[in-house]
Amino acid sequence: MSKKLTKREEDYSKWYNELVVKADMAESSGVRGMMVIKPYGYAIWEKMQAELDRMFKETGHENAYFPLLIPKSYFSKEASHVDGFAKECAVVTHYRLKTTDDGKKIVVDEKAKLEEELIIRPTSETIIWDSYRKWIQSYRDLPLLINQWANVVRWEMRTRLFLRTAEFLWQEGHTAHETKEEAIEETKKMQGVYADFAENFMAMPVVKGYKSESERFAGALETYTIEALMQDGKALQAGTSHFLGQNFAKAFDVKFTTRKGKQDYVWATSWGASTRLMGALVMTHSDDKGLVLPPRLAPIQLVIVPIHRNDEQLDAINTKVDKMLKELRSRGVSVKYDKRTTYKPGWKFAEYELKGVPLRIAIGPRDLENNTVELARRDTLTKEII
Amino acid sequence: MSKKLTKREEDYSKWYNELVVKADMAESSGVRGMMVIKPYGYAIWEKMQAELDRMFKETGHENAYFPLLIPKSYFSKEASHVDGFAKECAVVTHYRLKTTDDGKKIVVDEKAKLEEELIIRPTSETIIWDSYRKWIQSYRDLPLLINQWANVVRWEMRTRLFLRTAEFLWQEGHTAHETKEEAIEETKKMQGVYADFAENFMAMPVVKGYKSESERFAGALETYTIEALMQDGKALQAGTSHFLGQNFAKAFDVKFTTRKGKQDYVWATSWGASTRLMGALVMTHSDDKGLVLPPRLAPIQLVIVPIHRNDEQLDAINTKVDKMLKELRSRGVSVKYDKRTTYKPGWKFAEYELKGVPLRIAIGPRDLENNTVELARRDTLTKEII
Repeated sequence: MSKKLTKREEDYSKWYNELVVKADMAESSGVRGMMVIKPYGYAIWEKMQAELDRMFKETGHENAYFPLLIPKSYFSKEASHVDGFAKECAVVTHYRLKTTDDGKKIVVDEKAKLEEELIIRPTSETIIWDSYRKWIQSYRDLPLLINQWANVVRWEMRTRLFLRTAEFLWQEGHTAHETKEEAIEETKKMQGVYADFAENFMAMPVVKGYKSESERFAGALETYTIEALMQDGKALQAGTSHFLGQNFAKAFDVKFTTRKGKQDYVWATSWGASTRLMGALVMTHSDDKGLVLPPRLAPIQLVIVPIHRNDEQLDAINTKVDKMLKELRSRGVSVKYDKRTTYKPGWKFAEYELKGVPLRIAIGPRDLENNTVELARRDTLTKEII
Repeated sequence: MSKKLTKREEDYSKWYNELVVKADMAESSGVRGMMVIKPYGYAIWEKMQAELDRMFKETGHENAYFPLLIPKSYFSKEASHVDGFAKECAVVTHYRLKTTDDGKKIVVDEKAKLEEELIIRPTSETIIWDSYRKWIQSYRDLPLLINQWANVVRWEMRTRLFLRTAEFLWQEGHTAHETKEEAIEETKKMQGVYADFAENFMAMPVVKGYKSESERFAGALETYTIEALMQDGKALQAGTSHFLGQNFAKAFDVKFTTRKGKQDYVWATSWGASTRLMGALVMTHSDDKGLVLPPRLAPIQLVIVPIHRNDEQLDAINTKVDKMLKELRSRGVSVKYDKRTTYKPGWKFAEYELKGVPLRIAIGPRDLENNTVELARRDTLTKEII
């Protein structure tokens, strides 16, 4: 098979990159540092997204959507925030292209220069707090618990599929509270949600921690993280939750009338997890044969491969399998029957191992006679006849 | 109540804008032509998205994700395509900001100029077909049926909330086929999916049509649309499906080995529907009192308002309603009990009429005695005691 993987002990980093590409999760695009998330990878991300979204809604958060582009002036209102992001900003300066006078080239139309440059959001605190000023007047409007699913751009110099890309998909929660204590409680609650998600849904053990002053999010007073341990012994940041104090409320003048009738600035948090989780998933569970997907994240939970020498045998297997498919699907199992005759069973076995399908059933003529199947587990690589 | 709406017959366009803002669906942001979709509006969009996504998957499509930014050179590979979009492109020219030498201002770092400008996708045909070249070799790889949920930017001069905004959310399907006939069939199938969705899910009658040559999508051979009739007698385009012929395959050199062993260019379609559907929804169903939401799209399907003069009465109503809530929620009804004492019942009635909640129950002390409630329908504005 041509999809031979580099072994982890040979070159862990090369193994990772090859696996992401060969398992059809993602690939590099023609745009520097930006990836294409292929259907197999995107289906895993959709499952993560659905579960996280459910958890956010259960904890009282609502989704909204804020603009992709942020005026430069907003961005510089919070000093440490702009310091942290200025070096990695994609800047929109013009809004039109035109054909050159000789009709041969497409160029930027210099007449369509923006008065103020716009930044593609590297994160959305500034544009969101600019709205919150309009949304928050009184303690009755608090807490304000909003989440956004979005794409962001950070112009990274060294990129790696999923782990560090110039564009990534993520969710960013942005909340506003009456008191410091309530905001800190929210920050820790969301760190807890991330830890639960990682451990119970991704089967990925994590350590809850917080960042030193120099590593904190730009604009935060405290940054809590969950860190997952990768097979190469390194820790990977898999979600962060920031206590922002009153920094953004002061920068964007978001005041509220307190229960005592006074004016005060609101207290803020933000928290995010991204497609980087896909990289963490790969590095936590996979082996030299390919991905290993936890059943709750697998686009295909079970694959069935027929073993046959002729059409007659295949027909008999098809009849048997069609019954199995109906029953399995009615139980909510995501099952694929790969009866393509253009590939041999051995090739298919390797393919689904590479893609991390949790369970594989092989079924041949002898199985039909004995009313058995061969069941193989991807995680332990064990087989049994049942 | 301060949220008084302009009447439709007075000024339809003003009525529309006011309603979108007052019903808390969306508002303008500080960025020219870009809106903030507020939680109430976003919850409606999420329901649309979930249903459309289900319909796309049922018809065999898979989701993927392609980069936000497109090199200028890709964009100009298909001549009529670039002609159609050049005038409304947001152009990224730099990737870094810096502080001026005197430390007082944040400016674009001229040293961080991109060699080739990047365009924020106004649509993704070019970047997607650049990937398809790698994904498609043989007829066995076809049809390729991909959809993407994404944000796009088109620098519109005159914008209106939902109907025409510089950034909007949408889905764009991009498919590749062996034959012209199959591609045309796909184009019509997706026009049909949009029509089904509009009529059966949004309760919005539409007419299927196609565009004249001058109105076609830039790069398409044929553009099919669904058009919905608004209350002011105007038609609104609510979804388009394009037969692209071999234009993009030729521009991006996407050839495949046919069943007969020859090389040929693949046949393409693309189709999209956007947050403009939200505008269509407002204009189809609403009246001078506010939104009217079809039950399947309503974030709140039923609201319950207590009518009381003192705390004792409210307590008794609460006990009764808590039982009702449990039963209604267990049946999957999205129900809200608004027992806030900071607002009077009349204010609440107007508020939920404005927001288009399909059903309202009012319950007072006499209802407790008689074991009745007052049920009001939003669409017909009729009330009955049940």
